[in-house]
Amino acid sequence: MIVVSGSQSQNLAFKVSKLLNTKLTRVEYKRFPDNEIYVRIVDEINDDEAVIINTQKNQNDAIVETILLCDALRDEGVKKITLVAPYLAYARQDKKFNPGEAISIRALAKIYSNIVDKLITINPHETHIKDFFTIPFIYGDAIPKLAEYVKDKLNEPIVLAPDKGALEFAKTASKILNAEYDYLEKTRLSPTEIQIAPKTLDVKDRDVFIVDDIISTGGTMATAVKLLKEQGAKKIIAACVHPVLIGDALNKLYSAGVEEVVGTDTYLSEVSKVSVAEVIVDLL
Amino acid sequence: MIVVSGSQSQNLAFKVSKLLNTKLTRVEYKRFPDNEIYVRIVDEINDDEAVIINTQKNQNDAIVETILLCDALRDEGVKKITLVAPYLAYARQDKKFNPGEAISIRALAKIYSNIVDKLITINPHETHIKDFFTIPFIYGDAIPKLAEYVKDKLNEPIVLAPDKGALEFAKTASKILNAEYDYLEKTRLSPTEIQIAPKTLDVKDRDVFIVDDIISTGGTMATAVKLLKEQGAKKIIAACVHPVLIGDALNKLYSAGVEEVVGTDTYLSEVSKVSVAEVIVDLL
Repeated sequence: MIVVSGSQSQNLAFKVSKLLNTKLTRVEYKRFPDNEIYVRIVDEINDDEAVIINTQKNQNDAIVETILLCDALRDEGVKKITLVAPYLAYARQDKKFNPGEAISIRALAKIYSNIVDKLITINPHETHIKDFFTIPFIYGDAIPKLAEYVKDKLNEPIVLAPDKGALEFAKTASKILNAEYDYLEKTRLSPTEIQIAPKTLDVKDRDVFIVDDIISTGGTMATAVKLLKEQGAKKIIAACVHPVLIGDALNKLYSAGVEEVVGTDTYLSEVSKVSVAEVIVDLL
Repeated sequence: MIVVSGSQSQNLAFKVSKLLNTKLTRVEYKRFPDNEIYVRIVDEINDDEAVIINTQKNQNDAIVETILLCDALRDEGVKKITLVAPYLAYARQDKKFNPGEAISIRALAKIYSNIVDKLITINPHETHIKDFFTIPFIYGDAIPKLAEYVKDKLNEPIVLAPDKGALEFAKTASKILNAEYDYLEKTRLSPTEIQIAPKTLDVKDRDVFIVDDIISTGGTMATAVKLLKEQGAKKIIAACVHPVLIGDALNKLYSAGVEEVVGTDTYLSEVSKVSVAEVIVDLL
């Protein structure tokens, strides 16, 4: 099996190739002056199987680049292609929220099912999207890696999920940290005032680890951090698998009093400190 | 048949719908904060057939938007989709120029063949690309529209193709302008000096219409204009179907002495003055 990186996962693909004890395939990517993507497999290919690692932060570019890489690899005689999209774009448009909408991930699942033989991703927001694929759809969990990362940084922390839907992430992390876990509950005190506090646990004088699959705008997380600090929490670290961190999300979180924000290399950001390379290798 | 515009051809699609005496379908397009594309067919659809008009200047965005629009339209019960891509991106990567390259338009032809039932484009650079499609691939010629546009602007012009490969365009335009036509021949006078002149005709004291399918960097065209001016040409108008006009192309052309540059609305630019709406309607 050869490891081929897309332009957005060059470092991650190298890590995966090292863990697999295989050579990273040399691929040339560039843009033509009119901005069209160009890809070329530079190394000679003598293998039936390839894994393409190409995350989808710049989603439309990644999708087209993947289409082109598959074309080039098939022409080199590759029979089986596994696409690793550590962050799978459009996965949150997984149903019609309003009439007439595209179900974006369904539309793209059809494309992937036509050009690759297997798809691997990390912590997709909804797992039912696997039903849109006619190829194996496999996903890994990077929450343990985040928990390991904070292990020595927090003192007997409480692990919190930002909402009930994320409780599974807190549970997973709590096992590694040998800690109690809970989720944050939002209570409306008045039309303008909300309270956010752990459902049962008390954060007073405790370190806190808040963990979720994705931080987008960071709004709810920042409000939670601010209120937890008011409730006497000591050091708070906020973690997520996919640090999408739109606009001023990081600034909001730090201003709210968080000690550190950490994410993985599924999505390039200033805080993509934890690698999912091992998680990927376990799935290959 | 309903007319659906992509976000890059809203004006052109409206023109087409008017020529067809049909209502333009209301479509909502926006971006999520993380830059993912969102599309929604707002009008209720009671038709089996749709034509999507979506040019591909911002090529990767257009490709993904088209994939999403097809998903939404199929869900509304549309059975037959015609995609009009007035400018078809990646059409110039139509073969391997080096080993290991993707044949980009082949890869995308497979995608289009899976999601739409017919593809219409205007003046594709190479027509053999139709062989990559398993659906009807139909193309129109916008050169006559460009010739009509300059009809009253030039006095008994000579029509010139910038090279022999573009001679067909000059011939088409010459019929409408009732003019002589020729192509420009490049002769290397010394290692640093080239001469560019019409193969047989003399431009001295004559108006000139140079016409091509596409102007990308405008380099050769600008050099030609400069030399034609030196050869005594009076007013020179440069025209192309697809005004890609990368970077300083327009500035180069005007500095070289061209009177006017004109292109069509297959590709948004400062000089996209001629509409291909009628050309499209003739093909529907």
